[in-house]
Amino acid sequence: MHDTSMSKKTVYISRRARFNAAHKLCNPDWSDEKNREVFGKCANANWHGHNYELHVTVMGVPNDDTGYCMDMKTLSDLIKEFVEEPLDHKNLNLDVPWMKGKRTSTENLIIEIWNQLEQPIQEYNCALHKIRLYETENNYADYFGGN
Amino acid sequence: MHDTSMSKKTVYISRRARFNAAHKLCNPDWSDEKNREVFGKCANANWHGHNYELHVTVMGVPNDDTGYCMDMKTLSDLIKEFVEEPLDHKNLNLDVPWMKGKRTSTENLIIEIWNQLEQPIQEYNCALHKIRLYETENNYADYFGGN
Amino acid sequence: MHDTSMSKKTVYISRRARFNAAHKLCNPDWSDEKNREVFGKCANANWHGHNYELHVTVMGVPNDDTGYCMDMKTLSDLIKEFVEEPLDHKNLNLDVPWMKGKRTSTENLIIEIWNQLEQPIQEYNCALHKIRLYETENNYADYFGGN
Amino acid sequence: MHDTSMSKKTVYISRRARFNAAHKLCNPDWSDEKNREVFGKCANANWHGHNYELHVTVMGVPNDDTGYCMDMKTLSDLIKEFVEEPLDHKNLNLDVPWMKGKRTSTENLIIEIWNQLEQPIQEYNCALHKIRLYETENNYADYFGGN
Amino acid sequence: MHDTSMSKKTVYISRRARFNAAHKLCNPDWSDEKNREVFGKCANANWHGHNYELHVTVMGVPNDDTGYCMDMKTLSDLIKEFVEEPLDHKNLNLDVPWMKGKRTSTENLIIEIWNQLEQPIQEYNCALHKIRLYETENNYADYFGGN
Amino acid sequence: MHDTSMSKKTVYISRRARFNAAHKLCNPDWSDEKNREVFGKCANANWHGHNYELHVTVMGVPNDDTGYCMDMKTLSDLIKEFVEEPLDHKNLNLDVPWMKGKRTSTENLIIEIWNQLEQPIQEYNCALHKIRLYETENNYADYFGGN
Repeated sequence: MHDTSMSKKTVYISRRARFNAAHKLCNPDWSDEKNREVFGKCANANWHGHNYELHVTVMGVPNDDTGYCMDMKTLSDLIKEFVEEPLDHKNLNLDVPWMKGKRTSTENLIIEIWNQLEQPIQEYNCALHKIRLYETENNYADYFGGN
Repeated sequence: MHDTSMSKKTVYISRRARFNAAHKLCNPDWSDEKNREVFGKCANANWHGHNYELHVTVMGVPNDDTGYCMDMKTLSDLIKEFVEEPLDHKNLNLDVPWMKGKRTSTENLIIEIWNQLEQPIQEYNCALHKIRLYETENNYADYFGGN
Repeated sequence: MHDTSMSKKTVYISRRARFNAAHKLCNPDWSDEKNREVFGKCANANWHGHNYELHVTVMGVPNDDTGYCMDMKTLSDLIKEFVEEPLDHKNLNLDVPWMKGKRTSTENLIIEIWNQLEQPIQEYNCALHKIRLYETENNYADYFGGN
Repeated sequence: MHDTSMSKKTVYISRRARFNAAHKLCNPDWSDEKNREVFGKCANANWHGHNYELHVTVMGVPNDDTGYCMDMKTLSDLIKEFVEEPLDHKNLNLDVPWMKGKRTSTENLIIEIWNQLEQPIQEYNCALHKIRLYETENNYADYFGGN
Repeated sequence: MHDTSMSKKTVYISRRARFNAAHKLCNPDWSDEKNREVFGKCANANWHGHNYELHVTVMGVPNDDTGYCMDMKTLSDLIKEFVEEPLDHKNLNLDVPWMKGKRTSTENLIIEIWNQLEQPIQEYNCALHKIRLYETENNYADYFGGN
Repeated sequence: MHDTSMSKKTVYISRRARFNAAHKLCNPDWSDEKNREVFGKCANANWHGHNYELHVTVMGVPNDDTGYCMDMKTLSDLIKEFVEEPLDHKNLNLDVPWMKGKRTSTENLIIEIWNQLEQPIQEYNCALHKIRLYETENNYADYFGGN
């Protein structure tokens, strides 16, 4: 016999992950002087890097049999496959096909991470709700999808 | 004379609390094999445990006389009475009447903690807005109430 | 040539800042006894203090040329000018013109910080979305503006 | 029958505590100008404050019957009595008899906290080994006793 | 050609790991009353649990070819094999052969973790220097080996 | 009149700092295959990066007039000049003269940071005691100087 008393309740579950990557901010349409002026030390020609911290939030209704919206192991595996594998210990400007030609700002990076994760998560009766990405302990971005 | 210039402003205040508990994930309708297959090491027969971290968020309008939505001491006392007392240094599967017969997933636990706190908080001219529950530093859940 | 494929996406960016200040909670219409009864040790006549931690969240659409909603350096400078400069290493009850006559609760403080930051941020094609203010690691408030 | 195989092993146990206090740095032998020059904004006449975080480390040999060097509850109670009670929600310059006439720097504060705790801990077959005191997340001091 | 200018310098490297376990504090020579009196809520018959956090510190001299004292991947693998595998998602009193008959205090646990790791690390031209074990954010122990 | 009762007490004060840098681990005497075999993903040709966190600990005796071992502002300025300026938003392999020809492991980096800071700190009646360097939240190194 199943416990059905809470089957219609939406819960948001989140998984934290991390990746370490190099990048620089650089607009190829601009001179070095303008890049340095706009992006400051983030434009350093030989790159710099970060320990990025990612929080992926999924919404769903807990399953009666498991008590899970989605198995955290599954969510962790999806993040490994679609985010950590392509980004960890990589150069965000050079090594990541889906960041090619884009400024590797936290804003653009979080939008593209959303695009990688949205479909795979939908196959598990859950919906991607929010992504948070910390570039440093003082700077982070949140994204809820766009339209 | 009271400062009334900000009397219609809704502020959300949050209190962090912690409790240490044992639990396991186990569906009594299933064989040991199936439990181990679905819940992995979380199904360990002799239990495991966590330092749970709870954030309780209450919404209200600051009182003109005190500047408080709700006295944090009162909120802390409610959390102690309705959450820490029944859960801290307990076995979530065996020692907690309101978790009996439920999978002790973070999802189910957060829903039931909401059910414990919702009424008591309403007696203080505030409304429970959100609960966040960390099972580990990498896994957590948010709940905003259901219907 | 610009990358326009994501130009309509709203991203929320946040900047963390800190300031150390003294304060006490005290209603001048009340006796010392009543202040002590309501505010407890927070009413200590000779003040106490906190390391306040502030998170300022701004919403905007990433610019095609920079990938930024708003330059984090600009946001950091605005917080320095409008929050850290008037509050850091100050007495919130005595040294801050815009807190005069108000209870220096976290709730009132966060509302007034919002009022300081809202206009300056609008000049950068972004909107102030949320402020979070930690008074201690266990107590914090969120504010999304009022009406 | 007791487990004696590890009775000669020294273990260091630590307890974290917190207190929120106001203070300022001010040498009464100096002019306001010199105080401002040497101590900067820490000399603000109307005080500022901090969430101090204290770590008290005690060394001892685990007892065969309990497995404890010293009951953490006892250590916590001693810290409450000798540190939190006199310092929490107080003004370090005005309200604390054993800081009177001293600069309330982290260095002087940690030495005096040591002096308060050293004797009481010795009554429990343990020795105070180290105190760490965080004034902010970026500034902290360690003290191992002096002679 | 190797860089030999710093070949005699001792560096201490540390790896953080985590495990989630159930336990209780209970002396089988004592009555339930005495256990409850001495160990308080830690004696709860049905167990409680923790997210333990472990820091393993190894001392060595950086190798000229690699710049490593010891490959962090190797240290991480040793911790997985000798600590996480036997302790994670386990009951410290029932499931761990080398804790049998011992009080599962943080003190005893850290001594036995040392005993598991000391030999394996010596095979890599390094020496185990220190273990730190957090039972909660407020309680932790350090151990440097015994004699 | 000075307070001399604690003038012989050694206190250790620490300052936390941060820098974001790119690097890779690569031994130029080795083939790409051997570099990849030994350094794994840390050998990625196009670099990766980290948010490094540095803790600099200085020992000294508090000055009677100030209560300071050393002004934290001075220590912070020295770290900015000798560590953050050359390392922040830089490539550790390419942009830092004093890391040229060395493996940019945490071990080698911490030794060279020590060499940069040791002399400047001695000019302030204090001695550099310890450096801690976090490469990630799980990996860090400590160094106390060599000989």
